[in-house]
Amino acid sequence: MQFEHTYKQYDAELESVRAKVLEMGGLVEQQIVNALEALVTTNPTMADSVIKNDVRVNALEVQIDEDCNHIIARRQPAAGDLRMIMMVVKTITDLERIGDEATKIARVAQKIYESDRMFVPRFTEIKSMISLVCEMLRTSLDAFARLDVTNTTDVARKDELVDDQFRAAMRQLITFMLEDPRTISMSLEVLFVAKAVERIGDHAKNIAEYVIYMVKGKDVRHTSLEVMERETQKS
Amino acid sequence: MQFEHTYKQYDAELESVRAKVLEMGGLVEQQIVNALEALVTTNPTMADSVIKNDVRVNALEVQIDEDCNHIIARRQPAAGDLRMIMMVVKTITDLERIGDEATKIARVAQKIYESDRMFVPRFTEIKSMISLVCEMLRTSLDAFARLDVTNTTDVARKDELVDDQFRAAMRQLITFMLEDPRTISMSLEVLFVAKAVERIGDHAKNIAEYVIYMVKGKDVRHTSLEVMERETQKS
Repeated sequence: MQFEHTYKQYDAELESVRAKVLEMGGLVEQQIVNALEALVTTNPTMADSVIKNDVRVNALEVQIDEDCNHIIARRQPAAGDLRMIMMVVKTITDLERIGDEATKIARVAQKIYESDRMFVPRFTEIKSMISLVCEMLRTSLDAFARLDVTNTTDVARKDELVDDQFRAAMRQLITFMLEDPRTISMSLEVLFVAKAVERIGDHAKNIAEYVIYMVKGKDVRHTSLEVMERETQKS
Repeated sequence: MQFEHTYKQYDAELESVRAKVLEMGGLVEQQIVNALEALVTTNPTMADSVIKNDVRVNALEVQIDEDCNHIIARRQPAAGDLRMIMMVVKTITDLERIGDEATKIARVAQKIYESDRMFVPRFTEIKSMISLVCEMLRTSLDAFARLDVTNTTDVARKDELVDDQFRAAMRQLITFMLEDPRTISMSLEVLFVAKAVERIGDHAKNIAEYVIYMVKGKDVRHTSLEVMERETQKS
């Protein structure tokens, strides 16, 4: 009975870690959405709240890290569980960095608000990039929650799209700057936002790769889309 | 006797992981130095070799990750050893990303080589930023090798300096672009290099924070320089 009790407790600990990762993921996604909102509507209150909420993201990272260390030290998890925990440790680092990127976007929103606002960009490309990376993040977290790699290559494919969009946005900004050098400062701010969004895409892709490692036991980092596709289709 | 033999083997495994991390750190530092060299001398062969060598950095990451998983699964390390391993797992992620940033710098060197080279920048600020982040990385890896936190706050202090230099470089580039819009494309490339170097600084600082966690058992991520200073001075 004692034994069963301990097992149940162990399961509950693992479940709690997984739930916290999903909570952190949800929070981080909300941070991205709010940062975009702050940017597009030049809303300083929204920007402030994104910056403030970053401490919640950070606190979750520290807490989940501690939980993982405790589980490893006390439960001596077997292969599958250990892989899950090591994957969580990596995932939360990427989630925390996504949170940092959202904060950077919010800071640009603040700067635009404080500027003379002569050239406020329309952020058409940024909006489309952000909706793509949010889809990527959601797919990765969903794959994590269900331990299902079916859609993970989709994340990698979308990451290439995001990179293309980043390059297109950059070309467009260069055109703006050449046409009217007074837009240079503002264009650079937009460029930093585009860069932050592109990074978010990278982090979402990293998480997808960790899920593949956890479920398939195969490390697909630093490989091609083709290798990723082949590995996820293996039964 | 069997017992002692196993212990010795275990020690050797831990030592091998630490040695590999230092090897990876040395390789990554060389990648930064070579990327700068490729940039400043517009040397396409050097740039190619940096890009090619990134697979070695990636391979070391995957290998050290595997080693750590094996040690945890088979040796069930106690508190101190476990902390070391969890810290290695995080450190190699940062080292791998530093490698990525070096590769990005090498790609800019290639682009400059392929351009009409009408406006080749002098990279004075970039050079100074790179020598700072290399110092930071060396201090962090040294702290890791000796398990000595004495100089870790120095890394955090230099990171603030790097951030200042990044902002100064950006202001200067804006001035260039305003004076001569034909320099816009090239200035943006320089800006991306500056951003890559600034990131390297962030990663070096992350590693210093992991060392503090490992040695002092205190998580100083997301805290202030003052907290970091206080924790590292505690005996």
